[in-house]
Amino acid sequence: MRGELTAKGRATRQRIIEGAAAVLRERGAALATLDDIMARTGTSKGQLFHYFPAGKDELLVAVAQFEADQVLEDQQPYLGCLDSWEAWQQWRDVVIERYEAQGDECPLGSLFFQIGRSTPGTRAIVIELLRQWQESLAAGVRALQGAGLVPADVDADIRAAALLAAIQGGVSILLSTGRSTHLRAALDQGIADLRGTSHAAV
Amino acid sequence: MRGELTAKGRATRQRIIEGAAAVLRERGAALATLDDIMARTGTSKGQLFHYFPAGKDELLVAVAQFEADQVLEDQQPYLGCLDSWEAWQQWRDVVIERYEAQGDECPLGSLFFQIGRSTPGTRAIVIELLRQWQESLAAGVRALQGAGLVPADVDADIRAAALLAAIQGGVSILLSTGRSTHLRAALDQGIADLRGTSHAAV
Repeated sequence: MRGELTAKGRATRQRIIEGAAAVLRERGAALATLDDIMARTGTSKGQLFHYFPAGKDELLVAVAQFEADQVLEDQQPYLGCLDSWEAWQQWRDVVIERYEAQGDECPLGSLFFQIGRSTPGTRAIVIELLRQWQESLAAGVRALQGAGLVPADVDADIRAAALLAAIQGGVSILLSTGRSTHLRAALDQGIADLRGTSHAAV
Repeated sequence: MRGELTAKGRATRQRIIEGAAAVLRERGAALATLDDIMARTGTSKGQLFHYFPAGKDELLVAVAQFEADQVLEDQQPYLGCLDSWEAWQQWRDVVIERYEAQGDECPLGSLFFQIGRSTPGTRAIVIELLRQWQESLAAGVRALQGAGLVPADVDADIRAAALLAAIQGGVSILLSTGRSTHLRAALDQGIADLRGTSHAAV
């Protein structure tokens, strides 16, 4: 059905998703009702089911996709252009700032728990988010290699995977403890070790 | 009350905790009932409330503590004696084996979600688990420094914090995707970078 939507229809659908995301962030995915979402977005039940025929679950998956896109969006423009040590440092600052501001609430995590972590829809969203995130980090390592700042024999994909894991762990510890020490250590050590690879080559 | 328990009382309490842990692993923290736990451990409701006066929540916190202890226990004897590269490699193998066997189910994570991630009891258990884990890793880095395998100016605490974050992230990605690629990358890159610190010093 989505393919048949007019430009106006797509805009309405997007407005519902963004309004629902705001409600879910405020109330929590477990407590927010369709009535809350209709009230916030000024839509009728008929409209809601027109855009999300399968109801709340379909809407929740769409919101999860929106929140996943937001994770990467919030790291731009830095994540998309990691071609100097300054860019890596600016990206690091933005990541820490974003997650410290978010504190111990994770909109995406609550959504995943609400929808069911292992349903195919949410699993696909996580896998794609991680894939894009890791690909951007690997592109950043390759950009440093292109600029001669990192030796060519560094495995960009493994570095990116390890750095991504460290960020995820730092965020997950922040969610559990309220402290960003580990996220900071993960980013600072990850970048320092990447810089350290050039010692052997110099 | 716990302080007043006889040796036999302590043994019974421990037997209930271990039986409850087994039930919770099988049925999931959300679905397991006190009846299941009583049936499994052969205890009456009276006994259960004798050992856990506040009921299911108190029992769940005790099980969470047991599972948290298990996380470190499963990494022994390696985690407690990381004084050579061989020991680090053996420890790495054990961690990967443990979490690959566990797959996408995390007994401790489900418990925390069930009890409430931000209740003081569970938060204290997470913080203490992370503290002990990180302290063991830092002691391992210091042991390598003592053996002359890692330069003295390496900051053992930051390295340990970053490595712990990477492991947590690798496990959390494994839980979300069913794949251990990131856990492996996190451990292998973390150990490789630690080894790499000696290049500058040699």
